[in-house]
Amino acid sequence: MRLRYLSSSENPDSQIWIFGIPYDGTSSHRPGARFAPDAVRISSEGIESYSPYQSLDLNGLRFYDYGNIEVPHANPEMMVDEVHGFITGLLMQGKRFLAIGGEHSISYPIIRACSEQYKNLFVIYFDAHCDMRDSYGGSIYSHASVAKRILEVIPSIRFMSFGIRSGDTHEFTFARNLPHFYPFTLNEVKNVLETIPKEAPVYVTIDLDVIDPGFFPGTGAPEPCGIKPGDLLDAVLSFRSLNIVGIDVVELCPPADSSGVSATLAAFFIRELLLLFIKEQVE
Amino acid sequence: MRLRYLSSSENPDSQIWIFGIPYDGTSSHRPGARFAPDAVRISSEGIESYSPYQSLDLNGLRFYDYGNIEVPHANPEMMVDEVHGFITGLLMQGKRFLAIGGEHSISYPIIRACSEQYKNLFVIYFDAHCDMRDSYGGSIYSHASVAKRILEVIPSIRFMSFGIRSGDTHEFTFARNLPHFYPFTLNEVKNVLETIPKEAPVYVTIDLDVIDPGFFPGTGAPEPCGIKPGDLLDAVLSFRSLNIVGIDVVELCPPADSSGVSATLAAFFIRELLLLFIKEQVE
Amino acid sequence: MRLRYLSSSENPDSQIWIFGIPYDGTSSHRPGARFAPDAVRISSEGIESYSPYQSLDLNGLRFYDYGNIEVPHANPEMMVDEVHGFITGLLMQGKRFLAIGGEHSISYPIIRACSEQYKNLFVIYFDAHCDMRDSYGGSIYSHASVAKRILEVIPSIRFMSFGIRSGDTHEFTFARNLPHFYPFTLNEVKNVLETIPKEAPVYVTIDLDVIDPGFFPGTGAPEPCGIKPGDLLDAVLSFRSLNIVGIDVVELCPPADSSGVSATLAAFFIRELLLLFIKEQVE
Amino acid sequence: MRLRYLSSSENPDSQIWIFGIPYDGTSSHRPGARFAPDAVRISSEGIESYSPYQSLDLNGLRFYDYGNIEVPHANPEMMVDEVHGFITGLLMQGKRFLAIGGEHSISYPIIRACSEQYKNLFVIYFDAHCDMRDSYGGSIYSHASVAKRILEVIPSIRFMSFGIRSGDTHEFTFARNLPHFYPFTLNEVKNVLETIPKEAPVYVTIDLDVIDPGFFPGTGAPEPCGIKPGDLLDAVLSFRSLNIVGIDVVELCPPADSSGVSATLAAFFIRELLLLFIKEQVE
Amino acid sequence: MRLRYLSSSENPDSQIWIFGIPYDGTSSHRPGARFAPDAVRISSEGIESYSPYQSLDLNGLRFYDYGNIEVPHANPEMMVDEVHGFITGLLMQGKRFLAIGGEHSISYPIIRACSEQYKNLFVIYFDAHCDMRDSYGGSIYSHASVAKRILEVIPSIRFMSFGIRSGDTHEFTFARNLPHFYPFTLNEVKNVLETIPKEAPVYVTIDLDVIDPGFFPGTGAPEPCGIKPGDLLDAVLSFRSLNIVGIDVVELCPPADSSGVSATLAAFFIRELLLLFIKEQVE
Amino acid sequence: MRLRYLSSSENPDSQIWIFGIPYDGTSSHRPGARFAPDAVRISSEGIESYSPYQSLDLNGLRFYDYGNIEVPHANPEMMVDEVHGFITGLLMQGKRFLAIGGEHSISYPIIRACSEQYKNLFVIYFDAHCDMRDSYGGSIYSHASVAKRILEVIPSIRFMSFGIRSGDTHEFTFARNLPHFYPFTLNEVKNVLETIPKEAPVYVTIDLDVIDPGFFPGTGAPEPCGIKPGDLLDAVLSFRSLNIVGIDVVELCPPADSSGVSATLAAFFIRELLLLFIKEQVE
Repeated sequence: MRLRYLSSSENPDSQIWIFGIPYDGTSSHRPGARFAPDAVRISSEGIESYSPYQSLDLNGLRFYDYGNIEVPHANPEMMVDEVHGFITGLLMQGKRFLAIGGEHSISYPIIRACSEQYKNLFVIYFDAHCDMRDSYGGSIYSHASVAKRILEVIPSIRFMSFGIRSGDTHEFTFARNLPHFYPFTLNEVKNVLETIPKEAPVYVTIDLDVIDPGFFPGTGAPEPCGIKPGDLLDAVLSFRSLNIVGIDVVELCPPADSSGVSATLAAFFIRELLLLFIKEQVE
Repeated sequence: MRLRYLSSSENPDSQIWIFGIPYDGTSSHRPGARFAPDAVRISSEGIESYSPYQSLDLNGLRFYDYGNIEVPHANPEMMVDEVHGFITGLLMQGKRFLAIGGEHSISYPIIRACSEQYKNLFVIYFDAHCDMRDSYGGSIYSHASVAKRILEVIPSIRFMSFGIRSGDTHEFTFARNLPHFYPFTLNEVKNVLETIPKEAPVYVTIDLDVIDPGFFPGTGAPEPCGIKPGDLLDAVLSFRSLNIVGIDVVELCPPADSSGVSATLAAFFIRELLLLFIKEQVE
Repeated sequence: MRLRYLSSSENPDSQIWIFGIPYDGTSSHRPGARFAPDAVRISSEGIESYSPYQSLDLNGLRFYDYGNIEVPHANPEMMVDEVHGFITGLLMQGKRFLAIGGEHSISYPIIRACSEQYKNLFVIYFDAHCDMRDSYGGSIYSHASVAKRILEVIPSIRFMSFGIRSGDTHEFTFARNLPHFYPFTLNEVKNVLETIPKEAPVYVTIDLDVIDPGFFPGTGAPEPCGIKPGDLLDAVLSFRSLNIVGIDVVELCPPADSSGVSATLAAFFIRELLLLFIKEQVE
Repeated sequence: MRLRYLSSSENPDSQIWIFGIPYDGTSSHRPGARFAPDAVRISSEGIESYSPYQSLDLNGLRFYDYGNIEVPHANPEMMVDEVHGFITGLLMQGKRFLAIGGEHSISYPIIRACSEQYKNLFVIYFDAHCDMRDSYGGSIYSHASVAKRILEVIPSIRFMSFGIRSGDTHEFTFARNLPHFYPFTLNEVKNVLETIPKEAPVYVTIDLDVIDPGFFPGTGAPEPCGIKPGDLLDAVLSFRSLNIVGIDVVELCPPADSSGVSATLAAFFIRELLLLFIKEQVE
Repeated sequence: MRLRYLSSSENPDSQIWIFGIPYDGTSSHRPGARFAPDAVRISSEGIESYSPYQSLDLNGLRFYDYGNIEVPHANPEMMVDEVHGFITGLLMQGKRFLAIGGEHSISYPIIRACSEQYKNLFVIYFDAHCDMRDSYGGSIYSHASVAKRILEVIPSIRFMSFGIRSGDTHEFTFARNLPHFYPFTLNEVKNVLETIPKEAPVYVTIDLDVIDPGFFPGTGAPEPCGIKPGDLLDAVLSFRSLNIVGIDVVELCPPADSSGVSATLAAFFIRELLLLFIKEQVE
Repeated sequence: MRLRYLSSSENPDSQIWIFGIPYDGTSSHRPGARFAPDAVRISSEGIESYSPYQSLDLNGLRFYDYGNIEVPHANPEMMVDEVHGFITGLLMQGKRFLAIGGEHSISYPIIRACSEQYKNLFVIYFDAHCDMRDSYGGSIYSHASVAKRILEVIPSIRFMSFGIRSGDTHEFTFARNLPHFYPFTLNEVKNVLETIPKEAPVYVTIDLDVIDPGFFPGTGAPEPCGIKPGDLLDAVLSFRSLNIVGIDVVELCPPADSSGVSATLAAFFIRELLLLFIKEQVE
């Protein structure tokens, strides 16, 4: 059975949509990211709507929380089709959006849909892992292959990855040949963003495991020696000059962190990311 | 900030409402019942809508999930006023309802509102604790005083309590003088229910801690040597002949049970209780 | 007792094999059963090798712990093929075995392989859930469809299910028409087993969620009002007269139970089940 | 460093002492019983002082909580000497007591001290495990050897054990030859207690793992298929006719149960056991 | 019922008192701070009494642990009165003290009592949150209003706050107009302390959530991007030149951190803070 | 990467052995390190075999996972003898090894065995604690005495300790007189390593509690204000020029960290440490 929440007072006509994609069907280490959207909603009650970093309040943004998309948990191809269809529909209505994963595999159908609507789409990719295997666990749509798939629809010159510190030998060989591969830190984010044309559409995908597991233990494949939340915040704040058309925040795995601070961290960054849309709306 | 779920497809015109009262402001041992309504909603996804015990399906019931009432966590009097007002409004629209606590203190304003609308209201009270202190922790509206308050608006002859096995000396002295005090077990439920006039309005309040902590560890004041879930199920099934006007299910404390089986047990009983309304609607 | 990884001091020539199938790729509520085989091995160190219920000691059984089969987590068809191939290989060497799941979906390829080697195979099925959906989550090999698949390779007259208490309306309608559907309890086990021809090959699949979640919280889809461990033990002891050719024990989900008692319960039943093979060897 | 609680208002002159022995140095499976005394004290705040089972209130008993004995965690011999010395001192002052373990190994020095002061001492032994190994883990004072050691200072005719359901082959062979070995259940408790001479001194040791892990998951070596708390309560209530000189309650392992219900169950039984002393004081 | 610890060997005549205030009645996100004083006492056993940072040992300080104050959990006004009365009594005996919360709301009655005894009292305030709402959750004594209340009894020129990074728009507008508001970091602590007159009485209140949740997950309202423990240690060490008359350490919420490292961190800072009193005693 | 039990496909002839010593018999605060070796093996599946820090892959190293040594949990002397004997046997076959603790007490018998085989052995010691008590908890082989014992077989000039920030007054007085005591940070590691003669045999012991509990909560005696994982990684990478003959990694306590990131961190450092042997093999 399913009990549901009341609809948000904001209505679906809002130009900014938020929704969850509770999918973790290809998780190779610790599944559980399917519980992330609801965990973020609950944790969001402990976070203020005002950001002292941006001096902006979410109350100033009209956005709509659609709830969660229903996705088939045992069929990656079907998930890809359904997410792709949903996003295409949204984009055709002119919406911008923030998707809450779910595992990173959801980013491929989203970005493919965006690339079809927006010529010249740039992708900003934050992650601890390369995600550049040809396939994994029997699927080409695995979370471990998502960057590889994205690079089939986005030219590598418009794919910028940051913070990666894990992969196999082949992945690193491949990655090190990419034009915009900036592993281990986020030090290069600002410099790289400046190379993006001012009006170019940009998609941002943040695999939260780019953060050090000390600060973000609740994730499926924690990878030591990551970045500090403050460094991710600095990067996010530097997105303000971009023309962001879509965002996803993925790989929160709530069952792995009974303290709940990982969900809180996700909710915090979602606030900061949503606030970036305020400028969008004003324009 | 607050992210919200999509509205249920059922609409508010439904005659059956469900809502959460996320209040635990007087909890004397382990607080956390405020998180129960959301935990029940999430756990409800793991429970089928069909009951093989009643051979009925929740899909056959039109009900509306209102979401959670906002209650002040630091002011019991204000909580009592707000819940009383909300319930009165519902009853004036002819609704029947199931409230998800929150701690047991929420039952007093609900029952007071019901007793004002329904003359001759009977109260069925399941609990491990007497809840018959004059006041507790500085408030007469404490969860430890809720039965005492209810007995100020309902004559004791129409107050039937079952399963109680904890209290102080004064509470037990008081309780043992009540006309319908059936401690330790639910053995007497069926016999007692038969004494209720057929059309009399009945309110059911189930403090889930009546269940043994082995089956229901996620509660604020676990009390050993309680009843088995199967015995509570038998009791619930015997409610079918009653004219139930309202129900509450209280004292699930999700943070106290990381296994989640307590939330599942709550969702299970909420399904069985909601199904009792199907007969109501048909009539 | 101690179950061991890969090679144990016993060698692969043993007629009895034990192995893990760490697969949970179609889990619809809480994934994590992939961690069960290793959790059982670790918990097995807290359980004696001697059973006072059977007055037998596991030290008297030559068995081999193969370790875990590698299965693709994101492709149910591939899992089915690989498990089917592995089991077929084992059976062709004349082995009997106990498989540790993983989720219940692993039982279908095992039973299909067994049914191909053993004509007249009987299947004893313990579960809380019907598992009789045509497909679920985008796959016909879902854990929620496994009984439906098994009934495509085993005639319903040789499929005996016990303890089921959850399903949708269609599943219960279907199940109630089966010749050997004994829901809610294990009361009928002994009577039903007596109808099995003495030398007929029997496969036993135990979805541990048949046990009440109070005793076994660590499972993916806990269903209230289940059976007591003592009743399952009685049932297992009554298997002694059967000619068991294979066993699986599935749906332990270790991350859902931080107390570890669910893994201990699984290890306990695995000991009792393995001891059933002692008679087999002696003969 | 060590911060401490306020002294109890009762003073050390009380005839009844309670104290903790935070020792788990020989634990063979899951250590952590050292944290039990403090966990019981904290959980005791959630339990009423009045027992509706005995219609008595702990406020009617003058008892003194000494705090915890300091025991060396890495030296079983030294632990035995220190506990033996402490108990001897208590007994010479005519005190009766309830000791909170710690693991079961603490019972040996206590019972040896009691047997030196009380000729004709009877020992009532509740446990899931035989504890009858000659030595274990390199020590003859292991928790797995404690019954064997006790039987060196108490004749077997005065040693009554109940509820045992785990051990190796040798232990069960030994145990089954004891005059008062009543495994699996507590069914025989009342009958056996009637054979104890009316004024004979009795020591009661309750290894809480005799309870089923479903109700008591927080223990070092959980053993499935145990007894229900209600059955242990019945047994405890039947102790009223005995002349109890000392009690221990052991093997609560708080870190193994994050729900805290195991500590609550221990506190509950400690209340019921302490109330048995009220009759003692009156006499 | 309540079992208690042994009294400390130090007696109440000590000039330095430590006590717990187990109050969390106004917690707006995650309650549970009521369990902090006992959790700190237990965790303190894992921390040495010697500080290599100060080259001082707590054994050199005569202090008295009073235990916990009993506070009404359901009545903020009554809590304020009782804490105010208790502190006033202490101050009239010339004691200095360290209070262990509980939530931050306890600081208001403490500081009001101190401000009545000490003219010219300075308040050093560490927190992640503004706590400057007029009222919250139905009470003016909410933890979210405590700084607002303190500023009614302490002139803003003597109120110095550090590390704040969360609040609503109104709170930040108000806070930014305060003379000594130093948000986000502790960088300004040393400079600001130098402006306090040498002999002026100083009260220090440390809401531990000023620390980043990565290091201190066990708190009621974790706020990302906080300070490192080492920076808080540096600040604490710089207090040595101050004339500290009272300290509180608040908002440890033990149930939110099953790893226990948050309680350990609290115990660690309490050691360092208590050692600051050694100089006081020497003088 | 995957570490395996008992025999792996690599065979025992490999020159590099890895094995677990599941011993925590002298733990003074939180026991549970006995579960570390198996937890590391399971967590190792979530870590790649390739290190982007060293540009090396574990697949390039022939090593053998022996499984766990059986050690007596209740007898420190016997543990010391057994570990010493095992290591001596290994060294006589010319093996190099990495031992996974268990608590730090296991390092003494290992280092004593190494010092007997290798004249001029240097010891690199990472820890949060001095471990320089003469004895503790009734044993001279306590984890709190291990450095003291090591200094009886290794001259202090060849004992270099880093990162220590906890101890009693006597331990710090003693430690500060050692020639190579570098407390609080790892800043001096590189400089100190350069003073070791190029071909000298070196043993490395890493008590993981040297890391800050924010990053490594799963340890028996968490000590605040520790080092960052990145600093430990830098130190480990600087070991490449050393002639390492043995390594241990100790004091992971899995039950204390339900998030599992501590086990992952241990597995990560074990990968980096094992990769140091690649050069050894090549030579």
